[in-house]
Amino acid sequence: MITVDLNCDMGEGFGAYKIGYDRELLDYVTSVNIACGFHAGDPIVMDKTVALAIEKGVAIGAHPGFPDLLGFGRRNMHISPEEAKAYMIYQIGALQGFVKAHGGKLHHVKPHGALYNMAAKDYQLARALVEAVREIDDDLIFMGLANSMMIKTAKEVGIKTAEEVFADRNYQGDGSLVPRNLPDAIIHDDGMCVDRVIKMVKEKSVMTVDQEEIRIKADTICLHGDHPSALLFAEKLHRALLQEGIKLNPIT
Amino acid sequence: MITVDLNCDMGEGFGAYKIGYDRELLDYVTSVNIACGFHAGDPIVMDKTVALAIEKGVAIGAHPGFPDLLGFGRRNMHISPEEAKAYMIYQIGALQGFVKAHGGKLHHVKPHGALYNMAAKDYQLARALVEAVREIDDDLIFMGLANSMMIKTAKEVGIKTAEEVFADRNYQGDGSLVPRNLPDAIIHDDGMCVDRVIKMVKEKSVMTVDQEEIRIKADTICLHGDHPSALLFAEKLHRALLQEGIKLNPIT
Amino acid sequence: MITVDLNCDMGEGFGAYKIGYDRELLDYVTSVNIACGFHAGDPIVMDKTVALAIEKGVAIGAHPGFPDLLGFGRRNMHISPEEAKAYMIYQIGALQGFVKAHGGKLHHVKPHGALYNMAAKDYQLARALVEAVREIDDDLIFMGLANSMMIKTAKEVGIKTAEEVFADRNYQGDGSLVPRNLPDAIIHDDGMCVDRVIKMVKEKSVMTVDQEEIRIKADTICLHGDHPSALLFAEKLHRALLQEGIKLNPIT
Amino acid sequence: MITVDLNCDMGEGFGAYKIGYDRELLDYVTSVNIACGFHAGDPIVMDKTVALAIEKGVAIGAHPGFPDLLGFGRRNMHISPEEAKAYMIYQIGALQGFVKAHGGKLHHVKPHGALYNMAAKDYQLARALVEAVREIDDDLIFMGLANSMMIKTAKEVGIKTAEEVFADRNYQGDGSLVPRNLPDAIIHDDGMCVDRVIKMVKEKSVMTVDQEEIRIKADTICLHGDHPSALLFAEKLHRALLQEGIKLNPIT
Repeated sequence: MITVDLNCDMGEGFGAYKIGYDRELLDYVTSVNIACGFHAGDPIVMDKTVALAIEKGVAIGAHPGFPDLLGFGRRNMHISPEEAKAYMIYQIGALQGFVKAHGGKLHHVKPHGALYNMAAKDYQLARALVEAVREIDDDLIFMGLANSMMIKTAKEVGIKTAEEVFADRNYQGDGSLVPRNLPDAIIHDDGMCVDRVIKMVKEKSVMTVDQEEIRIKADTICLHGDHPSALLFAEKLHRALLQEGIKLNPIT
Repeated sequence: MITVDLNCDMGEGFGAYKIGYDRELLDYVTSVNIACGFHAGDPIVMDKTVALAIEKGVAIGAHPGFPDLLGFGRRNMHISPEEAKAYMIYQIGALQGFVKAHGGKLHHVKPHGALYNMAAKDYQLARALVEAVREIDDDLIFMGLANSMMIKTAKEVGIKTAEEVFADRNYQGDGSLVPRNLPDAIIHDDGMCVDRVIKMVKEKSVMTVDQEEIRIKADTICLHGDHPSALLFAEKLHRALLQEGIKLNPIT
Repeated sequence: MITVDLNCDMGEGFGAYKIGYDRELLDYVTSVNIACGFHAGDPIVMDKTVALAIEKGVAIGAHPGFPDLLGFGRRNMHISPEEAKAYMIYQIGALQGFVKAHGGKLHHVKPHGALYNMAAKDYQLARALVEAVREIDDDLIFMGLANSMMIKTAKEVGIKTAEEVFADRNYQGDGSLVPRNLPDAIIHDDGMCVDRVIKMVKEKSVMTVDQEEIRIKADTICLHGDHPSALLFAEKLHRALLQEGIKLNPIT
Repeated sequence: MITVDLNCDMGEGFGAYKIGYDRELLDYVTSVNIACGFHAGDPIVMDKTVALAIEKGVAIGAHPGFPDLLGFGRRNMHISPEEAKAYMIYQIGALQGFVKAHGGKLHHVKPHGALYNMAAKDYQLARALVEAVREIDDDLIFMGLANSMMIKTAKEVGIKTAEEVFADRNYQGDGSLVPRNLPDAIIHDDGMCVDRVIKMVKEKSVMTVDQEEIRIKADTICLHGDHPSALLFAEKLHRALLQEGIKLNPIT
C-alpha cells in the first residue's frame, strides 16, 4: 500500500496578530509544523495550536526558525553552527513543553524558511540542526527537503528522516529546487501540480525543468495555508491522492 | 540530620552581555535557577549554564520570568492567568530541552523577580504557575517564598514544594517580607544574616521586624551572585552552616 | 463655525502581519495616530503609513505604547516615570524621522492602550509623558482622554492639548469612562452613538451613565478600524457630522 | 593645521546590562557613535549617553545596526535595501529625539558592525544607508570606512562624509581591510599602531600588508572601549597625536 504524508505550517500568529487558515487546513493534512516563537508563534498560540492538533489527531512537529520575527524567519542570517544548534534545542524544547502539557508526543522537526533553505545546502549548518534533534530526543523524525544536505546529515547522525517535496515547484537535475528568482521556479497550473505529486509518490520520480526524469523520495508533501486559493488546492490534492488509492498517514 | 538547600539564580547573561559570577557561586550552592530567555538568558547561555551545572553536580531549576528583557523581569506586568501559564510552559520546556540534550534531569522551577513577587500574593496567578509545572512534569519541585500563595497553591494542586527564605530580609508577622520600600526591609549586617539563617534552619522560626517569633520552613536559602561582596557572603554562610553540622543538599 | 477632529489609530501591522483597514479609514478621518514599533508597527509599516497619510492630507500623530508587542500594549506595566519619558522620546523621535524623510511635519502625540489608560489617572506617569512631548518639540499637540490627568498635566507644563471623546463609551459623573469590565461600559446602538457625539461637539456636554449631564470638551473623536462594522460606523458618523454643519478638521 | 577626529562607539548597554567604559573614553575622543536600540542600547541608556556626550562637548553620532540584539549586530543579515533604509531612519530619528530633548544637534551617522561591513562592499545596501541619512537630514555627516562603497555612495547622493581608519588593522592594496579571519588582519604592537595612525593623518598614506604604500584619507580614527587595555591605547594615541602637533576635532 502506497502512503504519503501531507504537512503544513501552523500556529504562525503572534499576540494580537492572526495569520493563516489553521482550522480549515487541518481537514486535509496528516502532520503539522508548529512555529515556536522565534520567527512566529507565541506561548498562547502554541498552546492552542497543540490542543487543536491533538484534537484532530494529526502528527505534531516543531517548526523552529531564525530569531527574526520582523522578517518572519525568511531572511538569511549568518549564525554559527553552535548558535543554530542552541536555537533549535530551545525552540523544540519549548514546543515539547506544550505537547507534554496536553498529553501528546512530539513527532517531528522541520526547520522554517531561510533556516530550511540555508541548511539544505550548508553542511555545517545542517549538521548542527540534526545534532540538536538527536540530542533532545533521538526518536524524533527530521523533516527536510528531499535530496538535501539536511537529509544527508540526518542519516549521517542516525536519526529518522522524512523527505519533503513541493507540489508547485520545479526541480533541477541535481534534485534541488529551481530558485525562486528564476522564471520557471513556480508551477502555476493546479492540475499539473496534482499530477506531478501523484507521479512523485507512486513512481518516486519527477520531471526536471530540463525535461529529464530524476529519482525523488516523496515521504511528505508541503501544503500552504496562507490564502483561500491555497485551501482550495489542499482540498483538490487531498481528494486526488485518495482517488489514486494512496493512503494518507504521518511518517512512522 | 538537618539539611538545607542553597540556591542561586544563574545564566542571566544575554548575547554579548555578561552578568553575575556564575562560576564562582557554583562552589557554594546545591541548586541553581537558570534564566529561560524571557527576562534574561539566551539559548547559548542556557546551554553553557546547564553544562556547567551538570559538571558541578548541582540541582538544575528553571527560572521563568515576565517577557521583559528591557526590565530584567523586575517590573510588574498585568498578564492573564492563561498567559502566565503558557509563558511558564514555554520557558520550562525550553530549559528542559537543554537539560535533556546534556543528559540531565530538570529538578525544580522557581519564578523570577516581579512574577515571583506578584504570585506570592495573587491566588489566580500563583495557581496558573503551579498548574503549568504540574502539567509539564508533575515530578518537578516548585520553589517559592516560604508561607506564600505560591506554596499554598502548589500544595493545593499536589506538587512538591521547596519553601525559600532570605538571609538578608526582614519578615512581617504574617510571614511575608517587609517590602523593599520600607526602611527595615534589608538586614545589612552579615553576621546577623548568618545567625538568622541558622535559626530558621535549626529551629524553624524567625524573629519578625516587630520582635515576635514566627514559624518558618526553610527548605532553601537564596544566595545572590551579582557582585563580589555577595560572593563573600555566600562563602561565609556556606562555611557557617557546615560548622553547625547542617548538611547542604538539594531538596528531594 | 463648529469644528471637530476625527482620529484613528493606524500602522499597527508588524513584519508579515497585517491588521486593520488603514486605507479605507483614511477617507473618514482628519488625523491619524501611527504606531511606533513598541506595541505594534515596524520601520517599513511606519514608512508606508506616513507616506499614505501625507498623500491623503491628514494630520500625523505618534502613537507610542508600552514595549510589549506580545500584548499589543494593552497590558498594564509598572514602569518608572523616567522610563516612560525615555520610551516616549524614543518612539516619537523614530516616527518624526519618517515624517521628516517624507517632507511632512509631526502634528500630535497620543499614547496607546494601557499607557493611555494608566496615564489618564496617574499624575507621575502623565507628567512624564507630557514632559517628553514638550522636550522633543513643544509645538506638538498632546492628545488624551477629555478631563483626564493627561490633559491636566499637559496644561501644567504648557503644551497644546486635544481632548478626546469616545462615541461608544459611557461616562461617569467625574468625566471618566465607565470601566470596560462593567456592564454599561459600551453603547451598542450606532444611532445613539452618533447622537451622543453630535451633542458633545455642539453642546459640550454628555449624559452620564447616571443620567446627569456633565461638561465635556470634544476636540477629537476616536474612530476604530479593526473590523468592517467599525468602518461602517466611521462612514455613518462622518456623514452625520457633515449634515449637522460641523466642519471636520485637525486640531490647530 | 592638521586635524583629525577620534571616535568611539558608546551607549551599548541594555536594561540591566552594562558594557564598555563610556565615561573613561570620553576624555580621549572628539566624537561618539551612540547605539540606537536595535543591536544595543535602549531609551534610558540613549538618554543618559546623550546627556553625558553633551556635557563633555563631543560630537554626537547615531550608530544604527541590524535588528539583532542577540547577536549584537555582528551577524550578517540579508535585508532588502528598502528595509535597510527604513531601519536607518527609525534609529536615527529615535536618537535625534534624545539629542533634541537635551538641546543638542545630531552631527553624524556611522553604521554598526555587520551592517557597516556589508555596506562597505555592497552598492545597493550602501546606497540605501546614505539615502536614509540624506532624507532625514541632509546636513548630517556620513561616517564610513575610508575608500569603501559607503563613502562612494555618500558622495554620489551629495552628503558630507568622514572617512574612517583603524589603528590596529592591516590594509590591502585596494584600500580594504585584511579580513579578520586572515592571520595578518590585526596589528598587535601598540607603538606600531600609533605610528601608522600618525602617518595616515600626516601623509595621507598607509603601508599595505604587501608592503606597498597606498593613499588613504584619515578623517577620523576609531577607538575601542570594551576593555581596560583599549582604554590605555586610547590614552597613548591621544597623547601621541597631540605631541605631533595634530589637532583633535570633530569633522566639520
